[in-house]
Amino acid sequence: MADLDPEEFRRLGRQVVDWIADYRAGLGERPVRPAVEPGSVRAELDKPLPELPGELSGLLAELDRVVVPASTHWQHPRFFGFFPANASLHSLLGDMLSGGLGAQGMLWSTSPAATEVEQALLDALADELGLDPAFTFAGGGGGVIQDSASSAALVALLAALHRARPDWRERGVDGRERVYVTAETHSSLAKAVRVAGLGERALRVVDTDPTTLAMDPGALAADLAADVAAGLVPVLVCATVGTTGTGAVDPVRAVAAAVATTAPTAWLHVDAAWAGVAGLCPEHRHLLDGVELADSFCTDAHKWLLTAFDASLLWVREAHALPAALSITPEYLRDAASESARVVDYRDWQVPLGRRFRALKLWTVLHGMGLSGVREHLRGHVALAGELAGWVRDDPGFELAAEPSLALVCLRVATDRGPDADDAATRSVLERVNATGRALVTHTTVRGRYVLRVAIGSVGTRDGDVAELWELLRAEAGAVRG
Amino acid sequence: MADLDPEEFRRLGRQVVDWIADYRAGLGERPVRPAVEPGSVRAELDKPLPELPGELSGLLAELDRVVVPASTHWQHPRFFGFFPANASLHSLLGDMLSGGLGAQGMLWSTSPAATEVEQALLDALADELGLDPAFTFAGGGGGVIQDSASSAALVALLAALHRARPDWRERGVDGRERVYVTAETHSSLAKAVRVAGLGERALRVVDTDPTTLAMDPGALAADLAADVAAGLVPVLVCATVGTTGTGAVDPVRAVAAAVATTAPTAWLHVDAAWAGVAGLCPEHRHLLDGVELADSFCTDAHKWLLTAFDASLLWVREAHALPAALSITPEYLRDAASESARVVDYRDWQVPLGRRFRALKLWTVLHGMGLSGVREHLRGHVALAGELAGWVRDDPGFELAAEPSLALVCLRVATDRGPDADDAATRSVLERVNATGRALVTHTTVRGRYVLRVAIGSVGTRDGDVAELWELLRAEAGAVRG
Repeated sequence: MADLDPEEFRRLGRQVVDWIADYRAGLGERPVRPAVEPGSVRAELDKPLPELPGELSGLLAELDRVVVPASTHWQHPRFFGFFPANASLHSLLGDMLSGGLGAQGMLWSTSPAATEVEQALLDALADELGLDPAFTFAGGGGGVIQDSASSAALVALLAALHRARPDWRERGVDGRERVYVTAETHSSLAKAVRVAGLGERALRVVDTDPTTLAMDPGALAADLAADVAAGLVPVLVCATVGTTGTGAVDPVRAVAAAVATTAPTAWLHVDAAWAGVAGLCPEHRHLLDGVELADSFCTDAHKWLLTAFDASLLWVREAHALPAALSITPEYLRDAASESARVVDYRDWQVPLGRRFRALKLWTVLHGMGLSGVREHLRGHVALAGELAGWVRDDPGFELAAEPSLALVCLRVATDRGPDADDAATRSVLERVNATGRALVTHTTVRGRYVLRVAIGSVGTRDGDVAELWELLRAEAGAVRG
Repeated sequence: MADLDPEEFRRLGRQVVDWIADYRAGLGERPVRPAVEPGSVRAELDKPLPELPGELSGLLAELDRVVVPASTHWQHPRFFGFFPANASLHSLLGDMLSGGLGAQGMLWSTSPAATEVEQALLDALADELGLDPAFTFAGGGGGVIQDSASSAALVALLAALHRARPDWRERGVDGRERVYVTAETHSSLAKAVRVAGLGERALRVVDTDPTTLAMDPGALAADLAADVAAGLVPVLVCATVGTTGTGAVDPVRAVAAAVATTAPTAWLHVDAAWAGVAGLCPEHRHLLDGVELADSFCTDAHKWLLTAFDASLLWVREAHALPAALSITPEYLRDAASESARVVDYRDWQVPLGRRFRALKLWTVLHGMGLSGVREHLRGHVALAGELAGWVRDDPGFELAAEPSLALVCLRVATDRGPDADDAATRSVLERVNATGRALVTHTTVRGRYVLRVAIGSVGTRDGDVAELWELLRAEAGAVRG
């Protein structure tokens, strides 16, 4: 029993392509989130693995019967939860090609093209984002595709630890290291701090501006100075462009100045996981002001840049920084090309050893849509968010919980019965909207208050979808008010 | 400019399927590894990103012109390097479906089916591998798909740190933690130790048996006892089933006994990244003897189980161990299902937050080939390795550098001019074989001596391919001898 032969794959591959096309075409008719009991899918599949080969059609039937009805449909046009996880059909073409090639790009020599296409694409994309040339390979830095912004933050922290403490690789951390975030910073930074062995005590939560929720650079400078005076070692400062809660934007330039003045050896990481790709539009490029002063910058192609998970783009301004922190070379990975120092071995830019040829799915997006198409996609969602924010402003039954940020709108139900009642009503409206299956929204808290987030950005979202959500919100708010 | 509509995807998806089928069908005719200069692919692609959308056919032409000729072909029938990174066409079907669904399985509620299919498949596969029922969800443990065995080792270490030190999440590591490996253990363990902030000093390299290169459990017990006596904290012991160098198998049962006697709170991780899947064949299940005493067990579906990278399977015997170490819950990830404690949120079993629906590609392999087909695949490669080892034994110009292990054969050229000359000849033969492009082999060192590794396991490898390699080896060895 060998693998499929290529002719069988041609036949079955078409069945799968058709299945995907049908699934995507019918998405708008499905409930965004299923009503499913924990354990029900497992119960359906609780049987021994098959001894004999089965037909693909049987498995596709199982998908239709068991999997699809128990799936939350992230590509649904009315998926407004979390942040979008765009898996555009353009990107699937590249992902398929990546699987077809089946390359393992851990070393340059284990697939030169996989490495160099990634280098070339990330250099070109850095230019289009307006990043400083120092972040390109041509300029002495370079980009790498990580699986997620969480992993990007972790490797940035490891590079920072190595820079702060030349004996870190030998002796590990010593308990004096400190990392600076705000209460709005993504939890992946706290996770990176934990993974790196620093413990929660290493996390300094810097104050934010009470209105914008952006990091207060004066508070940062004070925290850094106090820690330095206490003999602690500021290792990394994370500035966020587009926080998960409300899309707040830390003032990167002022943050960088505070670092440069107070703790110049600390590493400045900019987490722009969701919002960074907006830099492709000149009118939003101001969001990246000051990033040229950072040590690393991350934005996710798999959030708003239409590329199927996983594809988090990380640029560093010193190409040697990650390998210096991460490289370990046993004999079986020794390689003449690596030793020539003329190539990049991406295994040394990440925690895992192996890696897929992920650049292909980004390439099919950029090639298939062109920059003009990508900008239109981003601008369309920003415009829809503006429209929704306008409706919220004009309706006394709702209020904006924060100024809209790009395509993220945070709102609350206004009851006239005080903030606790507003909290309860907002939560109730969210639950009722989601229960309809016609849209999915998620929540956060802002200044301790319950907030409904509308993150616009699914590949299929159109004008009518946001209007439908607004109708739902109004109807459910009306029902809650009674 | 929106995404492709489903009808366009149907058309372009077929073009991609055809491209993949043609590529795979023609693989045997290509040189396994390209002759390519560093920078040449980047130079070809050094141009601004396109402003306007392009036709897929143009990108496929670029693949044919630039990418394929600069690729190392891991799916080539005569790829014998490293370990196989099987991307079977069966698995590609599932990977495509995963992209089509575009689900983000970070929480149970963000895609119940993605989580529960993974749980069900890993429970069923644990049964077929003969793992102790304690490693299944049904038995209180559970399995998870990581991207790589490196990441599996890292999260195992983090769980071990949490178990060893209840204040690790708050205070981090303290410099007393120790981790036990051998010189044959994969470098990912050293990398995990570094990432976790322990530093290289935390790594204890336990002696191996000079013949088998397997961990010496007596030496382990002595090292553990000495460290405990010195006030150090044994945190994790890694036993390997099938080392990267020679496929050596640490005696897991005896290792577990040494741990239980000397440092009972230490975590026992079994890294069977390559060899573990052989447990699907009853005649090889003895390799997993003693695994029932371990805390965690890892084997890669993306090495020898035909599943496209990434799919490393990790089982733990305490389902709460990874979440206890890794969970951090900001408000925007709070969720009613999570709080019910009736579901698994896989984000807490890994470092990244987001995750693909990777179980689908494993499912299409197991469904499409059946267990009988998988076993035939494994057995076929083991038989080919036995045949090659026999030829090596019978040829005075070669010697086995270690007993063959499953489908891995390690050999050296024998020159009759002493071991240094054998080293040089072996290296030269490897380089000459690889330069032909007709096969790819890689190397390691065994007891300080240069060794050529033949790792059989590519999805397309047949009898004739190993025979062709043997002819190449003999011819090049003859040329080297002069």
